[in-house]
Amino acid sequence: MEGENEVKLHGMWASPFSKRVELALRLKGIPYEYIEEDLGNKSQLLLQYNPVHKKIPVLVHNGKPITESYIILEYIDETWKTSPKLFPEDPYKRAKVRFWASFIQQQLLESMSRVVTSDGEAQEKAMEEMFERLGVFEQGMKEYLPGGSASFTNGENLGLLDILMGTTFGPYKAHEQVSGIKTMDPDRYPLLFSWITALNEHPLMKELHPPYDKLVELLQFINHTKRSQY
Amino acid sequence: MEGENEVKLHGMWASPFSKRVELALRLKGIPYEYIEEDLGNKSQLLLQYNPVHKKIPVLVHNGKPITESYIILEYIDETWKTSPKLFPEDPYKRAKVRFWASFIQQQLLESMSRVVTSDGEAQEKAMEEMFERLGVFEQGMKEYLPGGSASFTNGENLGLLDILMGTTFGPYKAHEQVSGIKTMDPDRYPLLFSWITALNEHPLMKELHPPYDKLVELLQFINHTKRSQY
Repeated sequence: MEGENEVKLHGMWASPFSKRVELALRLKGIPYEYIEEDLGNKSQLLLQYNPVHKKIPVLVHNGKPITESYIILEYIDETWKTSPKLFPEDPYKRAKVRFWASFIQQQLLESMSRVVTSDGEAQEKAMEEMFERLGVFEQGMKEYLPGGSASFTNGENLGLLDILMGTTFGPYKAHEQVSGIKTMDPDRYPLLFSWITALNEHPLMKELHPPYDKLVELLQFINHTKRSQY
Repeated sequence: MEGENEVKLHGMWASPFSKRVELALRLKGIPYEYIEEDLGNKSQLLLQYNPVHKKIPVLVHNGKPITESYIILEYIDETWKTSPKLFPEDPYKRAKVRFWASFIQQQLLESMSRVVTSDGEAQEKAMEEMFERLGVFEQGMKEYLPGGSASFTNGENLGLLDILMGTTFGPYKAHEQVSGIKTMDPDRYPLLFSWITALNEHPLMKELHPPYDKLVELLQFINHTKRSQY
């Protein structure tokens, strides 16, 4: 049935939130049309699909828009029940994955964003908190990545936590180059470091990572713009 | 089978996050044991069940802890598939409910908390943003509460959005008395006002609302403590 599964994604090349959705679609082998948005001049369609937040990514499935990357991931997993499943089937296991997903999104991303938007003493404090949270996360992931081996949380396949981590921390070298702050320290976080290294070697992650130099250039621009507001 | 569905809830009498879970359990008719936590002197069990955040609510199902109120609501709905379902069955409808749930949790709660923790010009700005967001929410809920009638988002039953709103905004009068800020203005937000009024008349909400005077006293204490930090 032509058009029954028409999937479009409005995204932006450097956005980890946009990459999350692309990775999920490719993992499940769902064909989609990608529409690059210019965030300085958003398309009328984007504004119409997401009038509340006016943000990418937006997934449009048979004309119906779904917004917010995490909600899109849930939608994809519940609509295309094909392997690999992103979330575990068992409700208790699912609750635990959701717990760590929330930790990544609320604790880790929040403290990282405070680090890059602050200076001096406030930045010191934010960094301390970020390192502490990375330590908690390192401990928590031991259950999912037993033996510290370079595997994924979903066995052979990438699961939800791999998707969030790979797209967020995968390009950590570009971030470290611009901020001068080492996050993925192999001595401090050996498990996270080997996990990210394995994720970066995954063929789909390689396909999806933004070009290094272009990302560094963008991050430098953002860094400059943010700091000049202080 | 004795003990097969042993459900315990660690909560706190005034917490809307704790009330969410109690409301969901009662809606589905799930028997549970309630354990009141003294947040100034948390139990060893609570710290053991939620070592990362050390927060209530924690649901303990057959000895297994589930933390974070929203994740607990999802767990309850996925584990006890009895009526009423809190989330819609259809993935697209579910994505939309999740969108508004996220709006309540991130946009509304965040700006409300900024209003009560700020002063002067910063407070003016936070209030303006809160009123704007309540306006967006009023518009968004028209689809769920057609005709502005005093119904619920799940038809005859309370659904997820009713649970979040009833427990968060249900006790708005106590909050308004302490803060002096009118949020549930019937002229400005007629739909939200009639919705909350209907929710407050629901027998389960009546059972669960904290005693008015005791809540006012607690809010005054919090208000005083917070302000004295500025």
